[in-house]
Amino acid sequence: MEHYDIVIIGAGSGNMIVNRKFASKKVAIIEANKFGGTCLNVGCIPTKMFVYTADVAAHIREAARFGITARLDSVDWPAIVDRIFSRIDANVAAAKQFREDNPNVTVYSTRARFIEDHVLELAPTDDEGAPGGTGAPSTGGQRISADQIVIATGSRPTIPDQFSSFDAVASGRVPVYTSDDIMRIPQLPDRLVIVGGGFIAAEFAHVFSELGVEVTLVERGPALLRHHDGEISQRFTALASKQWKVRLNTEVTAVEESPGGARVTLSTGDVLECAALLAATGRAPDTGELGLGNTSVRVEEDGRIVVDAHQRTSADGVWALGDVCSPWMLKHVANHEARVVQHNLLHPGELIKTDHRVVPSGVFTAPQIATVGLTSEMASEAGLDVVESVFDYKDVAYGWAMDDPEGFCKVIVDRPTGLIVGAHLLGAHATALIQQVVQAMTFGISAAEMARGQYWVHPALPEVVENALLGARIR
Amino acid sequence: MEHYDIVIIGAGSGNMIVNRKFASKKVAIIEANKFGGTCLNVGCIPTKMFVYTADVAAHIREAARFGITARLDSVDWPAIVDRIFSRIDANVAAAKQFREDNPNVTVYSTRARFIEDHVLELAPTDDEGAPGGTGAPSTGGQRISADQIVIATGSRPTIPDQFSSFDAVASGRVPVYTSDDIMRIPQLPDRLVIVGGGFIAAEFAHVFSELGVEVTLVERGPALLRHHDGEISQRFTALASKQWKVRLNTEVTAVEESPGGARVTLSTGDVLECAALLAATGRAPDTGELGLGNTSVRVEEDGRIVVDAHQRTSADGVWALGDVCSPWMLKHVANHEARVVQHNLLHPGELIKTDHRVVPSGVFTAPQIATVGLTSEMASEAGLDVVESVFDYKDVAYGWAMDDPEGFCKVIVDRPTGLIVGAHLLGAHATALIQQVVQAMTFGISAAEMARGQYWVHPALPEVVENALLGARIR
Repeated sequence: MEHYDIVIIGAGSGNMIVNRKFASKKVAIIEANKFGGTCLNVGCIPTKMFVYTADVAAHIREAARFGITARLDSVDWPAIVDRIFSRIDANVAAAKQFREDNPNVTVYSTRARFIEDHVLELAPTDDEGAPGGTGAPSTGGQRISADQIVIATGSRPTIPDQFSSFDAVASGRVPVYTSDDIMRIPQLPDRLVIVGGGFIAAEFAHVFSELGVEVTLVERGPALLRHHDGEISQRFTALASKQWKVRLNTEVTAVEESPGGARVTLSTGDVLECAALLAATGRAPDTGELGLGNTSVRVEEDGRIVVDAHQRTSADGVWALGDVCSPWMLKHVANHEARVVQHNLLHPGELIKTDHRVVPSGVFTAPQIATVGLTSEMASEAGLDVVESVFDYKDVAYGWAMDDPEGFCKVIVDRPTGLIVGAHLLGAHATALIQQVVQAMTFGISAAEMARGQYWVHPALPEVVENALLGARIR
Repeated sequence: MEHYDIVIIGAGSGNMIVNRKFASKKVAIIEANKFGGTCLNVGCIPTKMFVYTADVAAHIREAARFGITARLDSVDWPAIVDRIFSRIDANVAAAKQFREDNPNVTVYSTRARFIEDHVLELAPTDDEGAPGGTGAPSTGGQRISADQIVIATGSRPTIPDQFSSFDAVASGRVPVYTSDDIMRIPQLPDRLVIVGGGFIAAEFAHVFSELGVEVTLVERGPALLRHHDGEISQRFTALASKQWKVRLNTEVTAVEESPGGARVTLSTGDVLECAALLAATGRAPDTGELGLGNTSVRVEEDGRIVVDAHQRTSADGVWALGDVCSPWMLKHVANHEARVVQHNLLHPGELIKTDHRVVPSGVFTAPQIATVGLTSEMASEAGLDVVESVFDYKDVAYGWAMDDPEGFCKVIVDRPTGLIVGAHLLGAHATALIQQVVQAMTFGISAAEMARGQYWVHPALPEVVENALLGARIR
């Protein structure tokens, strides 16, 4: 049985761990799918490439407001897909090749299953024995062991439970797309039904809508982006309803095949015809095939692997990082956790801890949304004495220039300390503007210091943050 | 002779001084032109409204790269001008009306000239005695005095000396536009010659070029934006030369009237035909008509009023702020100086000082440029031991999404302290991205802390700053 110093399962964020400091370690990396994980292949990177393309289309559509007569004649979806994925696929291949060229690293392109805490069994590779296979040596049934094992298998999209009871779906006659495959569909649907109301639904609604698809969002709750600050959720839901067909408090009760693609029946009794159906209802930690039952690795009720602040699981010498264990399914959090594991693998006597205090996130929809820290609801529930301040894009110079009627920045300031405890932006470039607030919160710069202790470039867009801060008077 | 507690000359940044805390003071505000000053009327605000309009046009032109077929059919210049200035003019009028409604404030819509340190003589208003005049009481020859006088007359555009020797210009047969009037020309010229290579030239070149005008920049120096970091200046000059006709090391030697507008002869011997000519060669402090020779207010050789760190001139009880005295002709600096004067007028025993340490600035051209702190050249000249790091937009995820081939972020880090001493960005949203660096520099957050001490929203654009910082290894 081949023995390694370190085995890493999952070549997304897990692949970041191995750098030159690991040159003396014998390492195996096991990846059943593609190098780069969700982020590079089916997440952050390609979605933002599609989103930016949609943003370009949106600019064309808004040109008339600015005295410019322009026409959007057509959208070449296959060209867009090809531009995006030819670039991504080349990077994925290069990342894998780079690892295979590391003299101290063995790459196994297959799934792994725990036999016991430090022993893994490898599954046969998909193409094993198939004509045209890669000719890689068979891994089927092979076992390997390691002193340290890192679980970084990430997460996978889920499909609503009731969908498996629909014959047309269960039989595969009506495909239900997820974020894993919707970006590679061969042609744009004329009508798309998106089930879900979270950030993935919001991003794809923007993409497909701007590229000319009639989009309907079906959300079982009373609003979109319900985990966000209430004001963000409320205003975004209103804006979304102007751009797309939005069905709230609604579930899908039946899916049938139809000549145009699918016929979707809603709990309201309404029936929607569409060419494609996208489930964007959530993601689950990807532990299903790991055989964790054979180990002493504990798992939360929601499927996440339990880790301590050092990213150690309950099994000695077994670590986890990223979506498979993290309370935040965010790439920047996974990166941070990977750096913590990296350090801790090399310095067992000086373990460092993960810092989950100030975690921002962004939604690249229309308009963009960014958030960090407490929502108004969380601050209220925690009984904090806070001051809230909201400032609109339209009341700063750059918002004038953009003729932006809807953007705003909200800050929540703790009255006793003057520190910012939350910030929420909806509007152009929100995901860039939030970063400065993250910095203030992380380094303990108070709202008043941040607002008046520095020059703000006039007339640039961060002035909306400045003015929101100025409005949060704690005295 | 009417006596005031405070007289403010200039209702741009000077107008910000008077708030509720001045309710018990008898105040006069003297403004010969428009309330709001350069920024609101002919500077930051309208230029950015034109720039954003140009940005929209640019998005349409780049659509093909993103798989979108679009056409820009026409640009309605009069509609653009009307949209922008109807909004601005309404705000200017409202600002003036607001002041006139202050019971403790008298507004004089005319010029003022010092008779001695604390006595001013008012010029006749332009429409005095003219049919259809405003009917306001005559101010001609009226004298007023004040305990405290604030000079906030700003700056005005200059025209190259040699232009006055050109008959066609001196006689007015060929108008030479400046930033004061180019934005209100009745129709777009087919060809525009811009003399100058600084930020005003760069912004107007972008505006007019994207709106369909053939633009030629004539710059006497060897590069554009020469006061910027050398790498910014060099890369921008190269990019500008792809977008516009750029003539470097060149001066205008003759201007004559021609059927299409003007014929401009260059020092190279070349002759340019154009419909309009814009001088964007600099701005000078606006002290010309103030009669400072009658006072003990000292003036620098370059025309700026000498002030100390409290914004006091050399004449007791006479203050100055903004472009008329500041080493920085920037609205955010004038705002800061106005706040200092505001405080100091109210607290003569507890004067505060102006802080000019970390002053950022932006150029809203294509691509955007933003800068703060030392350039490479300044750091080298100061003999600092620095590490420089440059990171390209194209190597972060959002840069991929934008398909941006040219943007970059440069940081300059002081090796002994690890502190950032300068940062320079060229690329989309540079004027927003710089603000976070301003914050780090102002509050003493080191490059290493800034890079690794916080979460960076993935895949948002600030990651280009993060990566530039990571590249500046001081050990």
